[in-house]
Amino acid sequence: MLAELLAALGPAGCLTGDRVAEAARSDASRSGQTLPLALLRPSSVAEVSAALEICHRHGQPVVPQGGMTGLAGGANPRSDDVALSLARFAGVEEIDPDAGTMLLRAGTVLERAQEVAAEAGFLLPIDLGARGSCQIGGNIATNAGGLRVIRHGMTRDNLLGIEAVLADGRVVSSLGRMVKNNTGYDLRHLFCGSEGSLGVITRAVIRLRPLPEARQTALCALSSYRAVLTLLDMARKTLTVSAFEAMWQDYFAFNQQIARLSLFANPPPFAVILEAEGAGLEPLLEQAFEAGVIDDALVAQSQTDARRFWEVREGHAMETALPGLINLDISLPVARLDDFAQACRAGLRARFPDAHVSFYGHVGDSNLHVAVALADNAEDGGHEVDRIAYDLVRGFGGSISAEHGIGTLKRDWLGHSRSPVELAVMRQIKAALDPKGILNPGKLLPA
Amino acid sequence: MLAELLAALGPAGCLTGDRVAEAARSDASRSGQTLPLALLRPSSVAEVSAALEICHRHGQPVVPQGGMTGLAGGANPRSDDVALSLARFAGVEEIDPDAGTMLLRAGTVLERAQEVAAEAGFLLPIDLGARGSCQIGGNIATNAGGLRVIRHGMTRDNLLGIEAVLADGRVVSSLGRMVKNNTGYDLRHLFCGSEGSLGVITRAVIRLRPLPEARQTALCALSSYRAVLTLLDMARKTLTVSAFEAMWQDYFAFNQQIARLSLFANPPPFAVILEAEGAGLEPLLEQAFEAGVIDDALVAQSQTDARRFWEVREGHAMETALPGLINLDISLPVARLDDFAQACRAGLRARFPDAHVSFYGHVGDSNLHVAVALADNAEDGGHEVDRIAYDLVRGFGGSISAEHGIGTLKRDWLGHSRSPVELAVMRQIKAALDPKGILNPGKLLPA
Ligand SMILES: Cc1cc2nc3c(=O)[nH]c(=O)nc-3n(C[C@H](O)[C@H](O)[C@H](O)COP(=O)(O)OP(=O)(O)OC[C@H]3O[C@@H](n4cnc5c(N)ncnc54)[C@H](O)[C@@H]3O)c2cc1C
Ligand SMILES: Cc1cc2nc3c(=O)[nH]c(=O)nc-3n(C[C@H](O)[C@H](O)[C@H](O)COP(=O)(O)OP(=O)(O)OC[C@H]3O[C@@H](n4cnc5c(N)ncnc54)[C@H](O)[C@@H]3O)c2cc1C
Repeated sequence: MLAELLAALGPAGCLTGDRVAEAARSDASRSGQTLPLALLRPSSVAEVSAALEICHRHGQPVVPQGGMTGLAGGANPRSDDVALSLARFAGVEEIDPDAGTMLLRAGTVLERAQEVAAEAGFLLPIDLGARGSCQIGGNIATNAGGLRVIRHGMTRDNLLGIEAVLADGRVVSSLGRMVKNNTGYDLRHLFCGSEGSLGVITRAVIRLRPLPEARQTALCALSSYRAVLTLLDMARKTLTVSAFEAMWQDYFAFNQQIARLSLFANPPPFAVILEAEGAGLEPLLEQAFEAGVIDDALVAQSQTDARRFWEVREGHAMETALPGLINLDISLPVARLDDFAQACRAGLRARFPDAHVSFYGHVGDSNLHVAVALADNAEDGGHEVDRIAYDLVRGFGGSISAEHGIGTLKRDWLGHSRSPVELAVMRQIKAALDPKGILNPGKLLPA
Repeated sequence: MLAELLAALGPAGCLTGDRVAEAARSDASRSGQTLPLALLRPSSVAEVSAALEICHRHGQPVVPQGGMTGLAGGANPRSDDVALSLARFAGVEEIDPDAGTMLLRAGTVLERAQEVAAEAGFLLPIDLGARGSCQIGGNIATNAGGLRVIRHGMTRDNLLGIEAVLADGRVVSSLGRMVKNNTGYDLRHLFCGSEGSLGVITRAVIRLRPLPEARQTALCALSSYRAVLTLLDMARKTLTVSAFEAMWQDYFAFNQQIARLSLFANPPPFAVILEAEGAGLEPLLEQAFEAGVIDDALVAQSQTDARRFWEVREGHAMETALPGLINLDISLPVARLDDFAQACRAGLRARFPDAHVSFYGHVGDSNLHVAVALADNAEDGGHEVDRIAYDLVRGFGGSISAEHGIGTLKRDWLGHSRSPVELAVMRQIKAALDPKGILNPGKLLPA
């Protein structure tokens, strides 16, 4: 089989032994331990197709790899897997300025695609912290969220067309550029979010947006979660909201301190970063202040001001301050985020009295993050934290993964968010498209 | 089998013989000829499930029926089919004002759901001319477009959760209310647009939007299609566009005349209705005029003015003026709509020199309509018109159905828009979810 692959892809396209880069071991979760049997680097759709046809014939498992920035272990190989990287099939093929669309190859690094869009006078509406390494194919395979969801939706909401190679090497091309196309089952949405288990994505058509007007940013202090929801509602009605990020007191206080900032000397019960495109932010804040919805607000007068607010929100210094930091990524009905936070804090504290526990999230998208760091001497921490949090998520009718996907790390919890019938239907679809089960086995679907 | 169905659904839920209403014969395309063997009217999810379990066991084909306003023949039964209507499973079950979501039953008539949303202070972002009869389940099954697509997207873009009964009676419930939920394959999007062939939709969660600000409407005269595209681009950059409807000269002239209006005494090459929420329309029009993009514009000073513009666009009087009117619903890359119109006009005129042929469409959504009426003595008209138009659509890389779906009427043309591999994948999915093929056989997928 390796000889066949070598013949089909050439020496630059089929690496084995020492030639397999260390980076093929693990995504950004750092949970991957082993190198794959081989690393395939096809440079065309025909080569992707040839590689899969060969692997399929031999029943050889294949792990698609993008930029390896995933956080769920989805791109990690096992020692007898073949990894297939899209890195050599990169580049923007076409921009249609009338339709506002971009046709590009799956291996294109997100930031590069953003730059090409900006040069043509457009915004590429997908953005995330990993932009410098993640690939558009990986963004689609994980249905990435990120920084623009409240304004432009998830990756799938900006995906007009897709091309993918099926397990047996057939190429399924739905590279439509049309917003409206009601001609049978929508294959885009099947591959989007399938984490490499239904096909290898090779090309896509993405919808571009006009470049945004200048943004204004404020940091607001609020005294209850009800007030946070009221502010969100008011903002949505009158502004073009481009971010609405809430920090619970525990998170804000901790990160303000380690960033050595004093934005609110007395950390309020809730701090919210409200960002809007165009005008109207200050009048809204005045109105909210008069109505008793916010207790205080700082409006950024410069990029530096805004960056300070975001520094507290992003909390990059946290990982150094709290070694072994665990970060959960869940979603819940927005009205219940604080009820959940209270129950989750209580549950974790009961089991781990000395743990750091704090909450923050993209409230406008119903997305909550839980930051947990156990004391040094705590045992079997990770799994217990997952169990306590995900049991509660299930009880609240939430989702165990808002953005990051399932991969291997959340695979055994999938039944907490999806019913047995849903799982059965997913398996039926998987079996229909990949009957030999060669695409990313062991990921996403529990055994 | 009928006895079992009667026992499960009761006399009000299982009608046969004379008790089957005439309405069960055909959707709004009036292409259906026959009454079904029985008309099932379940009043709960459990009854839908019981009915399908029985039919599945007997290998009995089932045709889901919503409001019967479809235009593709998708809900038409054959004489040995059982029809299953959702009409008795109707009503809004819950509105969550914080999340801005509505949980409702599939049989709810769209207009009723819109009213309930408005009473709660929200906009239900799906709207179409058939609102008084079509059901939310039918809207989802067809992924309906309609009047708000340019602002709020298609039905699928407003769908957060779905519940459906599979061919064998299993209930698959994905009634999440969260915008972000990356936990495996997205089943919503599989059922949405599947035209009753993968499951019977029973409930859904729809995303609501804030009620819009007042709208302003203008009718613009333009002298080239390039100018139409420039106006669209300018409008998108500075306004919240809620409609952008273009009429080619042939369509505008004909409909202005039969409506006995004289909006533009000399019909321009292109007339565009531009509608925007909030302020900014008049400054934009001035700018477009100065830049030579538009030659003239009428700004509606009242609801009556706006209604006149729309009267010409909707062209309701056309059906009376042109008996046997055929209306095609296609989409194409937006830059090429006029090239297509010219080629299609020439192709149809060559074959039918005396035909009425005119063009209009939701240009902002890349959606073009072709109105065709053949002279009385033209033979085999419908099929020939389809062939000429759809052959061209294929050549232009377009879609033979922007909104209305495939049903029976476009089924044999599906291969003009989807490749053999795409069709094969659709069949694999169909076979995986409905191995006995009892759900809406003969629709959507060509034999
Ligand atoms: C600093 C940082 C910030 C992040 N911020 C966010 C965020 O805000 N929102 C968010 O959603 N995620 C975020 N992530 C997670 C990650 O960046 C995203 O999941 C990203 O979309 C993964 O892209 P990738 O190319 O690195 O994919 P990889 O990690 O290489 O792969 C991810 C999954 O997709 C599959 N895959 C990759 N390419 C293909 C392909 N061409 N065809 C088929 N399957 C493929 C893999 O098999 C794997 O299952 C962040 C990660 C980091 C490190
Ligand atoms: C005046 C008028 C204006 C229209 N305007 C538009 C428009 O602007 N945009 C547009 O897209 N369409 C439009 N249509 C077409 C039609 O209204 C839509 O397709 C609508 O969504 C159909 O809904 P319905 O409940 O009437 O479905 P039906 O006609 O009853 O059924 C349509 C299809 O959906 C299936 N189906 C129905 N209910 C279910 C269910 N609960 N579960 C599974 N399958 C089901 C049926 O089997 C069939 O295949 C218009 C029609 C008319 C008559």
